[in-house]
Amino acid sequence: MAADFEKNLEKIDGYTKLVGLLATPIGHSLSPRMHNLGYTLKDLNYAYLAFEVGNDELEKAVEGMKAIGAIGFNISMPNKMEVIQYLDELDEGAKHAGAVNTVVNENGKLKGYNTDGLGYVSNLLEHGVELKGQKVTLVGSGGVATPIATQLVQSGIREISVFARDDKFFSNAEKNVKYINEEMQEYQVKANILPLEDKEAFRREVAESLVLANATSLGMKPLDDLSIIDDTLDVLRDDLVVTDVVYNPQRSKLLQQAAEGGSTAINGLGMMLWQGALAFEKFTGEEMPREKIKKIMF
Amino acid sequence: MAADFEKNLEKIDGYTKLVGLLATPIGHSLSPRMHNLGYTLKDLNYAYLAFEVGNDELEKAVEGMKAIGAIGFNISMPNKMEVIQYLDELDEGAKHAGAVNTVVNENGKLKGYNTDGLGYVSNLLEHGVELKGQKVTLVGSGGVATPIATQLVQSGIREISVFARDDKFFSNAEKNVKYINEEMQEYQVKANILPLEDKEAFRREVAESLVLANATSLGMKPLDDLSIIDDTLDVLRDDLVVTDVVYNPQRSKLLQQAAEGGSTAINGLGMMLWQGALAFEKFTGEEMPREKIKKIMF
Repeated sequence: MAADFEKNLEKIDGYTKLVGLLATPIGHSLSPRMHNLGYTLKDLNYAYLAFEVGNDELEKAVEGMKAIGAIGFNISMPNKMEVIQYLDELDEGAKHAGAVNTVVNENGKLKGYNTDGLGYVSNLLEHGVELKGQKVTLVGSGGVATPIATQLVQSGIREISVFARDDKFFSNAEKNVKYINEEMQEYQVKANILPLEDKEAFRREVAESLVLANATSLGMKPLDDLSIIDDTLDVLRDDLVVTDVVYNPQRSKLLQQAAEGGSTAINGLGMMLWQGALAFEKFTGEEMPREKIKKIMF
Repeated sequence: MAADFEKNLEKIDGYTKLVGLLATPIGHSLSPRMHNLGYTLKDLNYAYLAFEVGNDELEKAVEGMKAIGAIGFNISMPNKMEVIQYLDELDEGAKHAGAVNTVVNENGKLKGYNTDGLGYVSNLLEHGVELKGQKVTLVGSGGVATPIATQLVQSGIREISVFARDDKFFSNAEKNVKYINEEMQEYQVKANILPLEDKEAFRREVAESLVLANATSLGMKPLDDLSIIDDTLDVLRDDLVVTDVVYNPQRSKLLQQAAEGGSTAINGLGMMLWQGALAFEKFTGEEMPREKIKKIMF
């Protein structure tokens, strides 16, 4: 009988290090599977668990993770911007992004990183998308839109148009665009901010873009019957690349529409793997076996 | 390839619930293996991790475990008494014991229990030790001595003599004895408090006792070359039962001496399993498969 359970017995012992994810909703996340699979493949004594934490519990959760000696944790919606005030230090990329998705406990100091933007761009490159000199239309005002925008700016594009709903979060997107135009001038990228409600502007900007990127949670359960182009399906064309940060469902409504409209459709799984691999390395100091994990999980 | 890792992939996902252990030192603990084995055998989606936490980090660790939605946690040295101030509620047994080894998150309220004393007595009974009308000599002033003493008082003994080193913790043992004599009069048990340095008193009390119980950390690494009877080996006799709360090493110096001296030697593993089973049920609402776990782990 012992042999049957030896693997599980060995998997968690008194020396196992905790890595966590603080977000809500959390149950659908693929991060626990991805990271734990990486630990198993590399024979590392870590365990990655997801914790249902919103803004209200965030401060105590962050201090608690530090107090129990967690190696670090990922941050997802709705905590990516909120978490910054509870950290000891910010990496340069996280500063540009104004958002954190990875926190590492470095000798008792919590340092924030952002691997979302680089994960997004790495995934595009892997799909053969050449960004140099191109224009991108990005939809979103949340904690994932900003790092994608600032990383795109650093990746050779010439222009970015950010669309956001005209609601209380619009100012986030506005601030992001202002930051790119004023604080990132060295990259010579023109950034525009527009309300998503302006359908004519949306049609015009997408027509000039190589990439249309959704960085909102539209399309993710329970919003899985919605898409940012429900009223503007005519923007789709053969040489448009449509990307989604959503990976559950893997084929969001937007990507179904894009495929039906003849566009290239890229879902959020690749970006998720890339941002995970970058975080994995910060947590463990080891390279995540990304290709093996992709083969097993996809 | 997928099948090889399916079990590990399934083991932790976005819905896995955390149970923890807050103590120091922590690496040697068998609790993670015991509880995780129970979850595996019963197909429960929980993970049990040990966290290196001392008194200084305890408050933030406790609040953090609550904030991240942990189901509950065990408490071990040096936090069993310290933790009480951070809890919302205490079970009657924990109140008697003045110490907590199990905390359950009951709808956002943290309730403290103590399963150590009942675990100790259950283990004695399982070894065929009949306590009714007997006298017990107990050594210790820490968080595990008190629950054992108060549970013994409730288990039919006629007298208990508590020995503690004449140091800053002596008053804990004194308070425990006073509590038994004053607050637990209904059990008609006479409790005595004596300094461990008084070898003659120790010889006399053990001579009158059926059980000599070590509830100190003497014998546990790094104190594994020490025993409470190093200077009083002559107390050993054929009809004495010597018990140790130490289970790492399984055969502590005290139990080696006891066996060599002809006494019955009972180590802390049985108590550990029993206290674990009682905590397991509070965390999961399910019975821990104690016999199966014993067979696999022992």
